[in-house]
Amino acid sequence: MDIKTRRKLFDILMAPRSVAIVGATSNPNKVGHIILQNYIDVGYDGAMFPVNINAKQGDRIMGYKAYRSIKSIGKQLDLVVIAVPAEATPSILEECRIAKVKSVVVVSGGYAEIGRKDLQDKLVEITRKSSFILMGPNCLGIMNTRARVDTLFLPTFKIDRPKIGGVSFASQSGAVGSSILDMIDAEGFGLSKFISYGNAIDIDEVDILDYLARDDETTVVIFYMEGAKRGKEFIEAAKEITAKKPVIMIKGGATEAGATAAHSHTASLAGSYQAYEAVFRQFGITQAKTMQDVMDFAKMFETQPFPKGRRIAIITNGGGVGVIATDALYEAGLELASFSKESEKALRKIMPPIVNIKMPMDMAGDADDKRFAAALEVASSDPNVDAIMVIALFQTPGADSRVAASLINYSATRVKPIAVVSPGGSYTQAHRNMMESSGVPVYSSPDQAARAFKALLEYKEYRDSIR
Amino acid sequence: MDIKTRRKLFDILMAPRSVAIVGATSNPNKVGHIILQNYIDVGYDGAMFPVNINAKQGDRIMGYKAYRSIKSIGKQLDLVVIAVPAEATPSILEECRIAKVKSVVVVSGGYAEIGRKDLQDKLVEITRKSSFILMGPNCLGIMNTRARVDTLFLPTFKIDRPKIGGVSFASQSGAVGSSILDMIDAEGFGLSKFISYGNAIDIDEVDILDYLARDDETTVVIFYMEGAKRGKEFIEAAKEITAKKPVIMIKGGATEAGATAAHSHTASLAGSYQAYEAVFRQFGITQAKTMQDVMDFAKMFETQPFPKGRRIAIITNGGGVGVIATDALYEAGLELASFSKESEKALRKIMPPIVNIKMPMDMAGDADDKRFAAALEVASSDPNVDAIMVIALFQTPGADSRVAASLINYSATRVKPIAVVSPGGSYTQAHRNMMESSGVPVYSSPDQAARAFKALLEYKEYRDSIR
Repeated sequence: MDIKTRRKLFDILMAPRSVAIVGATSNPNKVGHIILQNYIDVGYDGAMFPVNINAKQGDRIMGYKAYRSIKSIGKQLDLVVIAVPAEATPSILEECRIAKVKSVVVVSGGYAEIGRKDLQDKLVEITRKSSFILMGPNCLGIMNTRARVDTLFLPTFKIDRPKIGGVSFASQSGAVGSSILDMIDAEGFGLSKFISYGNAIDIDEVDILDYLARDDETTVVIFYMEGAKRGKEFIEAAKEITAKKPVIMIKGGATEAGATAAHSHTASLAGSYQAYEAVFRQFGITQAKTMQDVMDFAKMFETQPFPKGRRIAIITNGGGVGVIATDALYEAGLELASFSKESEKALRKIMPPIVNIKMPMDMAGDADDKRFAAALEVASSDPNVDAIMVIALFQTPGADSRVAASLINYSATRVKPIAVVSPGGSYTQAHRNMMESSGVPVYSSPDQAARAFKALLEYKEYRDSIR
Repeated sequence: MDIKTRRKLFDILMAPRSVAIVGATSNPNKVGHIILQNYIDVGYDGAMFPVNINAKQGDRIMGYKAYRSIKSIGKQLDLVVIAVPAEATPSILEECRIAKVKSVVVVSGGYAEIGRKDLQDKLVEITRKSSFILMGPNCLGIMNTRARVDTLFLPTFKIDRPKIGGVSFASQSGAVGSSILDMIDAEGFGLSKFISYGNAIDIDEVDILDYLARDDETTVVIFYMEGAKRGKEFIEAAKEITAKKPVIMIKGGATEAGATAAHSHTASLAGSYQAYEAVFRQFGITQAKTMQDVMDFAKMFETQPFPKGRRIAIITNGGGVGVIATDALYEAGLELASFSKESEKALRKIMPPIVNIKMPMDMAGDADDKRFAAALEVASSDPNVDAIMVIALFQTPGADSRVAASLINYSATRVKPIAVVSPGGSYTQAHRNMMESSGVPVYSSPDQAARAFKALLEYKEYRDSIR
């Protein structure tokens, strides 16, 4: 299959106009039921065909006409999702080959990952002779929030489905995939595509990076990978995509013991992490060391413009957290900005005497929205400031929803990157939600914001280096 | 004042049977109003006397008889909380001296921190001549969850008040104090005492450590400090307390720029962090680098027994997160445990073939409570396992509230320390709440659990070293 055809098929896979679900059933405990239910829940508006070998003439499954086989549908299908036991899958796949379906997702497990390489080889063999592309087996499949496609066999009550956004997320591991997916909504950013690719007998990391590079709806990529099979092509694909958009990588098997675990998990050769790390660094891939870093970096990348340099202004309504934030900047390899003489003069005029205008600028506990807005305006036009960390403590007497609104207004100007640090409980959380739903990245701890700024800066430097 | 008297007064300050609030008013925007309201909200059952210079004969403030002065109360007072402007405070303090009150909290700011050292010196002078101890000025004062004391001037709707527990928290900074306090409830652990000591003209770090060491209700201490004034005594107090209970320290001014910021914040001489770090290490104080570490360590210390060593078992229902967790252990300086031959044999008998019983033990996505309980039982009695990290992904088909219950049951045995990693959204959060309210420490990311285990192990090694 040439690359052009393969790309066309990948586009169809991600936004199919017709879907057959093999294994669909009215029994709510079955995977095929959950997948069909999810399609209904997300409001998929293409043609949908439940397939069940036990279906009789005139049967309906959850309101949809049921079919006994792919063949009996008698229509060209964009996507077939197979959710039947591993043993039964090869014959279904053969049907797909004959019916010339465009793409297949095999969610079923029970192949190489439990020692049944023989069964997996059968799938490989059929796929090689076919005109479809195949994702899986042993995967969760795909989500496309805009096209309202959802092949996950995890019920919506167990996983919060994120709002529509610019972040796409690919994961070799279904467990890492589903947990990070579930965290995205709570972290306040939006999702474009989710891809869980499992044993990767056909579609692999290289295909996925290529697709996400081409996909204009994707502005930021998150990737969990244990090992890349096609090293050289992976590097090419990485180079291509990072020239356009950031890729945040969390690599399983960064330590020797982790690599061993990865091998027994997906039979991946995690390889020397040093080698991967060198590739990531050379080709502008942002490395996240923890699942929390993934979240922290993604929301910064999704919403904020690039900083010019490493000088970060800290504007706070609580002195002690400003001290902790200053430490965090230097730990992350950044610098505390100093206001220009002009800015200091301007601030001295506007601010009451209680405000300490030296960095970290402490606006005191009674700081209201006007004080926040005025400080941001000065920092925004100061040539000595590259980015702004705002510590907005909603426990203080002065802080309320107007402060949140003033930070939203500033972030919308997109003049300089901003990160807000607002640690706290339910009252704070309500204000975080306000800000995050309007595209302001909010963090619980200053070190998180500092590391996210650093990641943004490093990616910006990479982009500059390849211009 | 001799140390014995001072200790007695500190005990009275923390659990007063009579409190006067100077500056109490019906005006809901005033600090004195919020403090009185908070006393009412938390259900304080001692005698309460609102004092307002404008009170007339027969006036009541929020239902309590109002007094014009300390003197006019005509009773021996355990605690006077002063919430009037800085200029008016010395004369009130003089009244307290004459009335022989036992303890005073000055919440008002406007002293050395804004350059009014002259006013602060007046407070020092009166305090020296008095028989009371004084906390502040420029502080939030104290909370004692069991004694239902709450001098905070931050309304309960802005800060979630934590449940009763064993963690006590002292903070030089009101801002760090209120934000961490507000996070505690969300992090699921319980509070004993909160102490915000501000400018520390009388009560300082040494007094507080001494009190918390003696306080049997306190099992874990969190401390935010920018600098200790009495170095030698601080070391003595640290040595004393860490021989009994863990102290988690977050030190502002760990970098040079941070130290400068700390100096302009509380006029603290943050000193060389290397020097502090050496003291902390030598005397068993646990250092937290971030506000998140503080939370992560505190919940582990509050609930879990000491591990014997650094060999951590990983039991997961999702392979990929097990790989990430393995990496996290080694990054934290811990080791992945290996099951003994006996354990492996036992597990092979109990577990279905899909389960990978080699560490990290992958119980697969359909693992239910029985599988979790069986794995924990084996790990618990295996001499090769010192502690257990359980990755419970509630997105999986098998995990539900019965899994949470089985983890709660295991944690209650207190045989080996356990940490649960459950990243996710609202469904997961509901199960986290279940577990945390029953004393199981739960984390979002494996690295958090790994660092918390490491902190627990290091403190245990310190305790062993001083036996």
